Amino acid sequence: MHSFESLSDKFNEYFSTRHFPVKPASLYDPADYFLRLGGKRVRPVISLMANELFGEISEDAYAVATAIELFHNFTLIHDDIMDKAPLRRGMQTVHEKYNESTALLAGDVMLVVAYDYLNKIDRHYLPRIIQLFNKTAKEVCEGQQLDMDFEQRQSVAYDDYIEMIALKTSVLIAASLQMGAVLGGAGVGNQERLYAFGKNLGIAFQVQDDYLDAFGDPSKFGKQVGGDILANKKTFLMIHALEAGSSSQVRELTDMMHSNPPDKVKRVLSIFHDCGVDKWAVDLKEKYINTAFQHLEDAPIVSVRKQPLQKLAQFLVQRDY
Amino acid sequence: MHSFESLSDKFNEYFSTRHFPVKPASLYDPADYFLRLGGKRVRPVISLMANELFGEISEDAYAVATAIELFHNFTLIHDDIMDKAPLRRGMQTVHEKYNESTALLAGDVMLVVAYDYLNKIDRHYLPRIIQLFNKTAKEVCEGQQLDMDFEQRQSVAYDDYIEMIALKTSVLIAASLQMGAVLGGAGVGNQERLYAFGKNLGIAFQVQDDYLDAFGDPSKFGKQVGGDILANKKTFLMIHALEAGSSSQVRELTDMMHSNPPDKVKRVLSIFHDCGVDKWAVDLKEKYINTAFQHLEDAPIVSVRKQPLQKLAQFLVQRDY
Repeated sequence: MHSFESLSDKFNEYFSTRHFPVKPASLYDPADYFLRLGGKRVRPVISLMANELFGEISEDAYAVATAIELFHNFTLIHDDIMDKAPLRRGMQTVHEKYNESTALLAGDVMLVVAYDYLNKIDRHYLPRIIQLFNKTAKEVCEGQQLDMDFEQRQSVAYDDYIEMIALKTSVLIAASLQMGAVLGGAGVGNQERLYAFGKNLGIAFQVQDDYLDAFGDPSKFGKQVGGDILANKKTFLMIHALEAGSSSQVRELTDMMHSNPPDKVKRVLSIFHDCGVDKWAVDLKEKYINTAFQHLEDAPIVSVRKQPLQKLAQFLVQRDY
Repeated sequence: MHSFESLSDKFNEYFSTRHFPVKPASLYDPADYFLRLGGKRVRPVISLMANELFGEISEDAYAVATAIELFHNFTLIHDDIMDKAPLRRGMQTVHEKYNESTALLAGDVMLVVAYDYLNKIDRHYLPRIIQLFNKTAKEVCEGQQLDMDFEQRQSVAYDDYIEMIALKTSVLIAASLQMGAVLGGAGVGNQERLYAFGKNLGIAFQVQDDYLDAFGDPSKFGKQVGGDILANKKTFLMIHALEAGSSSQVRELTDMMHSNPPDKVKRVLSIFHDCGVDKWAVDLKEKYINTAFQHLEDAPIVSVRKQPLQKLAQFLVQRDY
């Protein structure tokens, strides 16, 4: 069994080849540029880890892991256009470095190349893998659309937010695990357990992300603490504060979203503390991570084989950066 | 054997179902809206015609034809964003009716749904069909990127323009024919002949398109004659005039691209006439259509079966609207 770190090294070696033709450079260099910005490669590596639960990691698993990472990067390039984000991992986004049209096309062609990798696998598995991949791809698009829809709304119900986050971030982690399992010859039960493990893990991960943005240690977090608050983002924390706060607290939060006072981060954080949002978020994360672990535990697989996945999951939701 | 018209009716019946989930409507209604703007459906129907060359049209051929039409519409939605086009078939484009982000996502999800249809076919054919589809999809993206690159250039060589047009418009027609042939069980030779037929037909079609924009009958053409001239588009006609014109004619054409005088269309057309661009374009179209027909003729298939394709090809390059 490989640890996340050693599998990351193996995957990065596999992934570091050029995935695109040389010409026209005006299209393919921007796509290649974005991949070279790096990333933790959590989704492909977790897919390989799921594959290894059932035996030796197959060539097909590497191809599917590559397709997953290309798909994820395609969504990032297009999301950056939609969000008008100037930076990604501290470097210029594709539309910023080149232009929007090129970023749009570079994303499109990256999605097509993802299917090239899927198409490398044994045809016995191909229809099932494409079906899972496509279901997930549609869901990720739906999540992004809902996220944009929510930005236009005054308030978002907690359940709607969970649904959006699940679509936008969790289902890809879940499907990465499931696809690895499918290629390992797992039965439907184990496929479903790994999917449920990933889906709950993904939500816990997002809770942690929202938590760190508000309560993280600036020296470790690496980005501005309170960024979500300044951008009026409807995070887990804000949605809970709006549901749990007193009417005067809710009014103050709502007013600040429109007036953007200079001490907004400090005042919002103070309301978060008064409403117990920090404690609530830690508990919520625990709830999801425990559910995730339960699903993994339920899988009838020798427990020593599950350890790398458990360690990775712990790391993802306990990181403080 | 079916005529183009009767196969169009059959395809439209097949295609007129809803291809997307209902929710979220904010994502899928825009995608559905665009498909309901209609279109000639040339690519899917020509694919079915190629399939029928080799026997009865299969269910797989309908699925692939649908994927082709969805892919084509995905490119149109994204092209419209890049071109900032307000109208498509006389109706609002997706980004104009909704917004750019939604148009971007609606296009993305349409591409994914295209692969859903490919995934319906017999797994025996699936890897080969995806391989052809993906090669073509990348080429279409390359063609669009080259088209944008050329807009920034002072001049474009004739051969570069042909390459761009082939990528942007011909290869999809060519691959539509080839995929229909593959599903009909055609051998490699016939696949290649049909591909070559489609590729040359596509270029002839584009020459005709450029020709009509300059020399078409306004009462039949349905859009403003001289639109390409006003937009300083580097069409077949303009590229030839810049290559064949005298130095003073070339200077006048180049000057007008920058100064945009009110009588620009009239003056450019007059230079086109003086350089014999109209006659040249008609000859060029004939050259490509003859090459196309030769490839079709070379296919060892009973000639009566080829008649619908021949009729369609004649129609596409002789239309005056």
